[in-house]
Amino acid sequence: MVENFHVVGIGNAIVDVLAHASDDFLKEQGLPKGAMTLIDAHQAQRLYSQMGPAIECSGGSAANTMAGIASLKGRAAYIGKVHDDILGRVFRHDLSAIGVRYNTPALRRGPTTARCLILVTPDAQRTMQTYLGACIELGPEDIDEEIIVSSKITYLEGYLYDPPRAKEAFHKAAKLAHGGGRKVALSLSDAFCVNRHRDAFLDLVRNHTDILFANESEIMALFETPDFDQALQKARGVCPITVLTRSSKGSVVLAGDDVHVIDAEKNVKVEDSTGAGDLFAAGFLWGHTHGKSLAESARAGGIAAAEVISHIGARPARNLAELMAEKMG
Amino acid sequence: MVENFHVVGIGNAIVDVLAHASDDFLKEQGLPKGAMTLIDAHQAQRLYSQMGPAIECSGGSAANTMAGIASLKGRAAYIGKVHDDILGRVFRHDLSAIGVRYNTPALRRGPTTARCLILVTPDAQRTMQTYLGACIELGPEDIDEEIIVSSKITYLEGYLYDPPRAKEAFHKAAKLAHGGGRKVALSLSDAFCVNRHRDAFLDLVRNHTDILFANESEIMALFETPDFDQALQKARGVCPITVLTRSSKGSVVLAGDDVHVIDAEKNVKVEDSTGAGDLFAAGFLWGHTHGKSLAESARAGGIAAAEVISHIGARPARNLAELMAEKMG
Repeated sequence: MVENFHVVGIGNAIVDVLAHASDDFLKEQGLPKGAMTLIDAHQAQRLYSQMGPAIECSGGSAANTMAGIASLKGRAAYIGKVHDDILGRVFRHDLSAIGVRYNTPALRRGPTTARCLILVTPDAQRTMQTYLGACIELGPEDIDEEIIVSSKITYLEGYLYDPPRAKEAFHKAAKLAHGGGRKVALSLSDAFCVNRHRDAFLDLVRNHTDILFANESEIMALFETPDFDQALQKARGVCPITVLTRSSKGSVVLAGDDVHVIDAEKNVKVEDSTGAGDLFAAGFLWGHTHGKSLAESARAGGIAAAEVISHIGARPARNLAELMAEKMG
Repeated sequence: MVENFHVVGIGNAIVDVLAHASDDFLKEQGLPKGAMTLIDAHQAQRLYSQMGPAIECSGGSAANTMAGIASLKGRAAYIGKVHDDILGRVFRHDLSAIGVRYNTPALRRGPTTARCLILVTPDAQRTMQTYLGACIELGPEDIDEEIIVSSKITYLEGYLYDPPRAKEAFHKAAKLAHGGGRKVALSLSDAFCVNRHRDAFLDLVRNHTDILFANESEIMALFETPDFDQALQKARGVCPITVLTRSSKGSVVLAGDDVHVIDAEKNVKVEDSTGAGDLFAAGFLWGHTHGKSLAESARAGGIAAAEVISHIGARPARNLAELMAEKMG
């Protein structure tokens, strides 16, 4: 019998390679600012050779969220695919060391551990280019049924629709979770990702999702409108809980007929926006699985997001449980 | 004909693995706080499995110094040994990307790229455990004569006395430099390192060194006295220039009969002291090779050191040439 988890996350297991870059560099390289773009091994090699000095740290959207939940002393598990190489071992170490259960077997042949080349511009915005590597091998055989049914929430990142077989893993996990009376949460991940998979995401949101996370550009991409308020209206009622994040404008939680508007944290020094959405989801899911109201959960999301954007890297740099106790009492 | 360099650094080529840790953790693991301890592959594996989540970034004492000089728009070169593995490529990328000439061939068999497990305690002090890996293969055949004789200063880290064959490389480089009418600078690296190699270091300092860098504990270890002022008196006249760094107490430069006392930078928020001495040397050597006085060079050292201790990691996070222009005009 495995222990019970508050949340299990499933996602692309990625090591981030973070460097500062100018807006001119993004233009020269033709990189769409603020977005996540998929690149192949050759493009990754080429871009890396032209980037500035970097630091390496574990990333991956859902993995960042699970690290946040563990830092909040929630019980979190993770499913994602690395290669058994140096970066794969770094990824596994960093999740295990923060207290996330992570058992997915590593590849022993084939593509290397995935890398995301992240360029942080002087405005603290991040632009990401991902080489998926070993992630393309994640399949339904990697879904650990015991962990899914023993988790209150199964959290899926939209990025999983990019590699070929992860979608099947995604569906298997969602079906198992609902079959066990558990909830399914989905993050839309990125507006470009939404554009690549809009019909599938609309079906997921309408028919298989209990808690939806999206930022402004993602929800507008999903409903194909350039107007946030229009997107918000279209989002009402499509799934039980929808959490819309708006950066410095805070967040909006839609639940049935209720609309909760939550302010952002004040006086946040933004160093690197990488991981903001992931850590918002961590704080929210921690609150939601620990008896907090929707508004309190969204506030916890804002506090966790504010911590991660105050430094380089997409995982918490300080103990979030202590931070939350200070801020929320 | 190769270009002229201001400084060529020779050292152990290391990737840092940095994590936060408590003082209790250091005690449990029996790690000497503030020092650099050598560990083998097995010990490295064991300690890593017990450390918290980490970030990876290029390090190595002399390499950090060369990165600092390049960031100051000085011309710097580096000699050190990595394996042709992922971390070795990371190390090479980070030096090249900041503008340091780095040509030493990588190992294609044998030990992996060196790693330094760095634990940063809440007081921002760093405690280092180094697995030397590929560094033990550095030998005199890696010394590029053209680069040495075309560099104003050859900078050697004391840590080079730990791996078996690097000492020969060290002596070959010093001889070539002096033969070409160039200067030799030496950093004592670490008090424990001084204790391991005191006699050899005393000979080096007295007979082969033009510029010596040491912090308080290193110079006291060299002259076997618990009193800094006594160590300072003993250091007078042993080599043409001696630079003593004293953390928040600033620095002292000894040159012939002159003693220059330089204040530390004010209002520095210390996040992680890793790289402080390395970047002090970078600022000093940049100033000294760019027509600055000894006192101005020491001030430049203090400015570069203050930048690197204000964030995690041992390489500059911002453009030091811009910073220096702001501070020194």
